[in-house]
Amino acid sequence: MTLEYHVISTLVEDKPGVLQKVAGMFNRRGFNIDSITVGESEVEGLSRMVITVRADKKGLEQVTKQLNKLVDVIKIKDITENAVKRELCLIQVNIPNTEARAEIMQYTNIFRANIVDVCEKTLTIELTGDIEKLNAFISLLQPYGIKKISRTGLTAISRGSK
Amino acid sequence: MTLEYHVISTLVEDKPGVLQKVAGMFNRRGFNIDSITVGESEVEGLSRMVITVRADKKGLEQVTKQLNKLVDVIKIKDITENAVKRELCLIQVNIPNTEARAEIMQYTNIFRANIVDVCEKTLTIELTGDIEKLNAFISLLQPYGIKKISRTGLTAISRGSK
Repeated sequence: MTLEYHVISTLVEDKPGVLQKVAGMFNRRGFNIDSITVGESEVEGLSRMVITVRADKKGLEQVTKQLNKLVDVIKIKDITENAVKRELCLIQVNIPNTEARAEIMQYTNIFRANIVDVCEKTLTIELTGDIEKLNAFISLLQPYGIKKISRTGLTAISRGSK
Repeated sequence: MTLEYHVISTLVEDKPGVLQKVAGMFNRRGFNIDSITVGESEVEGLSRMVITVRADKKGLEQVTKQLNKLVDVIKIKDITENAVKRELCLIQVNIPNTEARAEIMQYTNIFRANIVDVCEKTLTIELTGDIEKLNAFISLLQPYGIKKISRTGLTAISRGSK
């Protein structure tokens, strides 16, 4: 059984408890959910939920079928292959000294990140990108001492048809 | 009983089922969760969960106390007042004609959004900001016909101490 990384996009009714039901379906199967994001969709009353999960192909098909049977689930699709994938991350990093501040500001420019809060001893930076980009930026800041990280988890949208 | 908008940040163990437990605590109380985001935190093995919820002050205090009792919940804090708040949104919009394309690209510049995918008939745009900014941009694009929206929900980080 080979576990693969999948990005599942699903349109669901915007009702309390739906998130729990969907997450529960994956958990019962023993699948490891890496992230879930939920937000308003293009249709009023419906939310779009994006789930990243490591699962074997056959097991995932079964969960997808079960989810499709839920009344609250309108549509479900595996968009791993052909999607724009993005995550947002807020990072609060220590500024040990003036050189460090200059270095961090350079990294911020290179990664096209934004400084969103400045204090005497910390900088708060906003960065969006795919998971690899976020991880690379975080490792770069690690030596200065990271005070706080807050990540949204991945959201994704399938690419327009050519 | 007056319902107010709150942003709750909590550090939790990165284990399956924790999201369901925490969400369930709010649901049982009848609180309306607007969004939940979960991602890796600055501590290995711990995730940071940001919950936006409309609740009365007293009820929220009780839920917070109950959550604090869970072994999987390390820390919980109401950061409504003094935090940087951001959400990420991907929007796929129709391009009815060349003028529309030019207009949409102007709006994208004004909002400092990014075009992340282009097709003959659609543009996919990435935007980050607070909820109001995202909603304003989406209303602006509505007349062209929005094909898909995928939002992460709000993440937040408390501002550095002055």
